[in-house]
Amino acid sequence: MRDVYVIGTGITKFSRLEYPLVEIAAYPAIMAMKDCGLSKVDHVYVANMGGSRLNHQTSLASALIDHLSLYPSGADSIENGPASGASAIKEGYQAIASGMHDVVMVVGAERMREANNLEATDFVASLAHPLAEQIYGVTLPSLAGMFTRLYMKKYGVTSRHLAMVAIKNHTNALKNPFAHLHAPITMDGIMDGPDAMNNNPMIADPLRFFDMCPVSDGGACIILASAEVAKKIKRPKIRLAGIGQATDTHCVHEREDPTDLLAVKEAARRCFQMAKIKPKDVDVAELHDAFTILEIVESEEVGFFKKGEGHLALESGYTALNGKLPINTSGGLKAKGHPVGATGVGQAHEIVTQLRGEAGERQVKNAKTGFTCNFGGFGNNVVTLTFVKE
Amino acid sequence: MRDVYVIGTGITKFSRLEYPLVEIAAYPAIMAMKDCGLSKVDHVYVANMGGSRLNHQTSLASALIDHLSLYPSGADSIENGPASGASAIKEGYQAIASGMHDVVMVVGAERMREANNLEATDFVASLAHPLAEQIYGVTLPSLAGMFTRLYMKKYGVTSRHLAMVAIKNHTNALKNPFAHLHAPITMDGIMDGPDAMNNNPMIADPLRFFDMCPVSDGGACIILASAEVAKKIKRPKIRLAGIGQATDTHCVHEREDPTDLLAVKEAARRCFQMAKIKPKDVDVAELHDAFTILEIVESEEVGFFKKGEGHLALESGYTALNGKLPINTSGGLKAKGHPVGATGVGQAHEIVTQLRGEAGERQVKNAKTGFTCNFGGFGNNVVTLTFVKE
Repeated sequence: MRDVYVIGTGITKFSRLEYPLVEIAAYPAIMAMKDCGLSKVDHVYVANMGGSRLNHQTSLASALIDHLSLYPSGADSIENGPASGASAIKEGYQAIASGMHDVVMVVGAERMREANNLEATDFVASLAHPLAEQIYGVTLPSLAGMFTRLYMKKYGVTSRHLAMVAIKNHTNALKNPFAHLHAPITMDGIMDGPDAMNNNPMIADPLRFFDMCPVSDGGACIILASAEVAKKIKRPKIRLAGIGQATDTHCVHEREDPTDLLAVKEAARRCFQMAKIKPKDVDVAELHDAFTILEIVESEEVGFFKKGEGHLALESGYTALNGKLPINTSGGLKAKGHPVGATGVGQAHEIVTQLRGEAGERQVKNAKTGFTCNFGGFGNNVVTLTFVKE
Repeated sequence: MRDVYVIGTGITKFSRLEYPLVEIAAYPAIMAMKDCGLSKVDHVYVANMGGSRLNHQTSLASALIDHLSLYPSGADSIENGPASGASAIKEGYQAIASGMHDVVMVVGAERMREANNLEATDFVASLAHPLAEQIYGVTLPSLAGMFTRLYMKKYGVTSRHLAMVAIKNHTNALKNPFAHLHAPITMDGIMDGPDAMNNNPMIADPLRFFDMCPVSDGGACIILASAEVAKKIKRPKIRLAGIGQATDTHCVHEREDPTDLLAVKEAARRCFQMAKIKPKDVDVAELHDAFTILEIVESEEVGFFKKGEGHLALESGYTALNGKLPINTSGGLKAKGHPVGATGVGQAHEIVTQLRGEAGERQVKNAKTGFTCNFGGFGNNVVTLTFVKE
């Protein structure tokens, strides 16, 4: 296999965006082309989950080609639920590693503002099992609520640990100009003070308002290239060194132990094996905290901490921006936002920015190896990536 | 790049199917696994266009993994409008050629029966340009009608030539048990006889009822493998020898000459170049006749005939089942059916069946090299494939 490098990146602010879906895709693409100085690419992948239903638009990848005048380059849309972004990066990797292409653009884009909150919840629930989950009213927040309750009981995680994830990630987001939420929160404000329960109402017991990511619009882009092309680009050399993908049962209730996220574990194992590194070699990571509990559990399943000890590492400050292994320096899905199809590409954008040493106020010192975990379904299709600075 | 072979195939009848989308995907997958005798694959790609909007289901690839108990293998859904199927095959090719995987399942599946005819038309129109086509009421039949009118004027194609495509493909479909329409039609019945205009009313002038493909449900599957795996499978050796993809402007009206399908031309050129063959080496082809005019024009753009002479070749019987270059032996989209996401995989299924010599009554003698053209948008994203019997 040929080596594959990230040569360009771009991102929109994750927010409520006024412009059409194709422009949400085009903006970070143009930014990434400027970043590496190329005006042509061999192929384009677009990660998107909701275009057909929410925006009345299919074939988004073809639309983007037109918007950027990139024809006759080929283009395809990739969908793997909320893990669409990392899946699209993997397709880009394979296109270059195989020798089919030398330069591939990978864009993630989502415009969810067309949907009100109820419809957005229903839309995301369309990834659940139609006959065993959807028809009984299962939503992602309800699955996350039940999962959290089991996890609390088994491992001693408390609501205060969940709040610590939210506070850490909101604090990190204050240093990220592209983050959706620039709202400092405190334990007093969301858990302890007199207004805490008003500020932070129960949504899906035991998960409260601040345990949920926002519904965001947004786009992100990375441009991948062969070693030969990459060496001509005057940007830091960041290699996409490992990719792991794994699946699990569609229904959470069919898992032998529903508190295990086996697809996360296996995807990480495959990724580290391919990159020839160990979890302890990772300097900075973006984990998929669509719900606060997920950051804690993923930090265990990928191998950063022992099972049941993720909340203790969090509590000790190990995963804070100035800790030993900063997690979600971007603000994570919790505060940076979660435009579903764009999220995985956004995670890669953050890691590449960190490895390049261009993360400004939120820069992790001497970050050489970065990791992302992009979580599809309720953990039934997970894609992990490892990036290494050379 | 490593060589890639087709080791297994499966297909449902293209029809109005009673069972859920995931089962439409699962049925041909099981058939293909039986065909090659494997019970595991490294990765799954699912081509689908309408799951989110028409079937309230996203992450179809993950659902298929669960349905077939294939976890922890990874899976992704691929969307490129009506060319989703061939795009998914290309992803499968790259996954193996790169060395990431050895055995990859590629499924195409669509369940359009949830939509009535009006909604199906609107759904497919969601691939058109939102601001320059969709809002003015452009649909695919209306684009095809305008395109046909220009083509008639410029090249002398008549309504009778269009009817010849329909009659040929309906005749071929009678010999394909998996075809949607088993309805013999004649020039008398749809053009000349006293009931012809009742049988074949005008839909999008000059296109009549029998110039349109039906709205179909259906699924198809091919399993791809490395040479090392393929040599252990006791099935004819069919190599996926060439892939070409190309794009054109989103809006048909922006093309310098709207009667040119430049993406078809470029995709075919790239495909033949990769396969190291010429158009004249092709023994059997499946072209994307969603509208009868498209079979004629594609047969020219891919290089089988000179521009403006496709209808003459058709008229002479050159493209009939017993002609020099049989086109759409399966019945084509016109009579086999067009379950949009499944179509490209269905085309590959037909070509592999022909090259294996297993096409029964519709078998093309000594077919060694086959070609498919899968047409996305109104020709703005086209994927072509070449298969060679070794």
